[in-house]
Amino acid sequence: MILYKNDISQLSAIIASHTKVFLLLDENSNRYCLPILNTIDLLKSNTIKIVIPAGEQHKNIETVQYIWSQLVENQADRKSILINVGGGMVTDIGGFAASCYQRGIDFVNVPTTLLGMIDASIGGKTGIDFQGLKNQIGVFSQPLAVVFLFEFLETLPKRELLSGLAEIIKYGFIVNKEFLNVTLDPKHPRLPNAPIAPSFIKQAIEAKAQITANDTTEQGRRKILNFGHTIGHALETYLLDTQKSITHGEGVALGMVSALYLSEKYLNLDHQITLYYKEIYKQNFNRIDLNDVSIEKLLEIMRHDKKNQSGDIRFVLIEDYGKPVYDVVVKPEDIVDSITYLIDYLNDANYWGK
Amino acid sequence: MILYKNDISQLSAIIASHTKVFLLLDENSNRYCLPILNTIDLLKSNTIKIVIPAGEQHKNIETVQYIWSQLVENQADRKSILINVGGGMVTDIGGFAASCYQRGIDFVNVPTTLLGMIDASIGGKTGIDFQGLKNQIGVFSQPLAVVFLFEFLETLPKRELLSGLAEIIKYGFIVNKEFLNVTLDPKHPRLPNAPIAPSFIKQAIEAKAQITANDTTEQGRRKILNFGHTIGHALETYLLDTQKSITHGEGVALGMVSALYLSEKYLNLDHQITLYYKEIYKQNFNRIDLNDVSIEKLLEIMRHDKKNQSGDIRFVLIEDYGKPVYDVVVKPEDIVDSITYLIDYLNDANYWGK
Repeated sequence: MILYKNDISQLSAIIASHTKVFLLLDENSNRYCLPILNTIDLLKSNTIKIVIPAGEQHKNIETVQYIWSQLVENQADRKSILINVGGGMVTDIGGFAASCYQRGIDFVNVPTTLLGMIDASIGGKTGIDFQGLKNQIGVFSQPLAVVFLFEFLETLPKRELLSGLAEIIKYGFIVNKEFLNVTLDPKHPRLPNAPIAPSFIKQAIEAKAQITANDTTEQGRRKILNFGHTIGHALETYLLDTQKSITHGEGVALGMVSALYLSEKYLNLDHQITLYYKEIYKQNFNRIDLNDVSIEKLLEIMRHDKKNQSGDIRFVLIEDYGKPVYDVVVKPEDIVDSITYLIDYLNDANYWGK
Repeated sequence: MILYKNDISQLSAIIASHTKVFLLLDENSNRYCLPILNTIDLLKSNTIKIVIPAGEQHKNIETVQYIWSQLVENQADRKSILINVGGGMVTDIGGFAASCYQRGIDFVNVPTTLLGMIDASIGGKTGIDFQGLKNQIGVFSQPLAVVFLFEFLETLPKRELLSGLAEIIKYGFIVNKEFLNVTLDPKHPRLPNAPIAPSFIKQAIEAKAQITANDTTEQGRRKILNFGHTIGHALETYLLDTQKSITHGEGVALGMVSALYLSEKYLNLDHQITLYYKEIYKQNFNRIDLNDVSIEKLLEIMRHDKKNQSGDIRFVLIEDYGKPVYDVVVKPEDIVDSITYLIDYLNDANYWGK
């Protein structure tokens, strides 16, 4: 159930039907978002706060155990509810913790980042990282409701907003080019400095909700959402423990360069589309130095990717705007080429003006 | 799907449709049961063995992490399958590990104990113990198939068989008195020394499969399976870390004494039924010294029981053979009385002939 600010009374009714209300926050959402929640009087009943450390590096089994121990200590029963307030890290780990506590208690997601709103909070994927592999452990489990309060976006640093933007741009390639036209001026495809219009974010939310509702366990068409993710995820994982760690959106933004290169090679995609995307990237995202990255190690990470089977590495590629093809098995040497293409693009001093 | 020995070809077909086959065993099933599996040529394909320590004290998050790390190390993908071969501990933890690995891979249960066959392996309850609470963490997740090979029963020590017998006797009270008549001679209600007939075990299997299929997440009638479990579970948990640890079946056998006492008080159960059950207990189970048990601590454990809400403690009681009533809220002072009744029964030197 998707709820916006004017549907808050429905949320109150949901909460009231539970015995105990637990609020999961990370250090950031506890500091910046809880005051906003309190202002709009969302949580009238007594709630028990569980605060976890912020950051993807804490999305692990130790933090899950901390959440479970807090639930036990406060005698959470099967009719308790967990409300996850935060970015994708909080909604992912909170959904997983709730889904396994006493074989499953209800949970609600209140995403507080742009990326969380249009991606992690919707679709029922919960999970944690394990042994350096992103979301390796988790379950498919639907939140009782997802609550969208756009006030939170005003609390976000620019880098977080851009991370969400990358996923919105993705919809321009896999769903409809309109997603690009509305956000960006084609002549100078830069995100406007003004806040992104809520009506536009809602379109992305509805798009994701619709795609995932028809394929809750990712057997088919839902896979198109992974456009840019095969290499993007691998880069994000690879850089997680380094000084250069990147956001999920930055990973996807980079991964789309390689995915478009491969789309040309495998599906005859028009080269103009790749050029246009490279311009979008340049106008909005940082030029990142990937020269030290081990391509062999990236391939190794991709082989562990959940979407793959029998050692093959599968990509979502596109034939044109809005025409994605999933489960395309790409040869390792072509993957290497596509990463080299990405690195060359980032290295091109002429293009970037030094 | 329930499979018996003559359905083994179906299992082979299931296995063949997966990319990699993992076999989860504990030290006991690895030693006593794997040779039998190999004899009947169940697993022709290459399998990767994961062996965990035996015993309820290892049904914890550390062992789950070990299973996950073995799956990662051997590059299990989403189309891999985990075959859990062992007692309830192995099928519970294996089902949980599989259901969370990459958001869920297929698993098959091959129960090797009587208790596992008629209880843990059927119904889709998976889980582990957490902070001293039994099955506090887990998910509802159905195995692709449950495979019953009665050869395994010949490998079991007497105490393990009796643990299973307690659950069969339970069906005599909650489903149909026939379950008692077939197993026991009414004049001298002792389990025969001969092996329990497979046809009879099958009846218990089908009874559990039917009750759970109609209520997979335990919202209603399935709760009747917890007859004897409220106090039985608490005793099992309480004694887990002591020298006197008891099996699940022994806990249930003891818990049924208290549950019958409460059934008389709350539902006017005929006292003759309690007397008959006490005779069954005496003929089959050990006289256990519970004088040192802290009743206060047992109540504390029961309050944490997943089946309870808002601090109430709920029981399954019976009006008559085959007439269970679930969600009966029992007052704490009556629970104390019922435990005292159980302890007095076990202390009664005249009855037990010292």
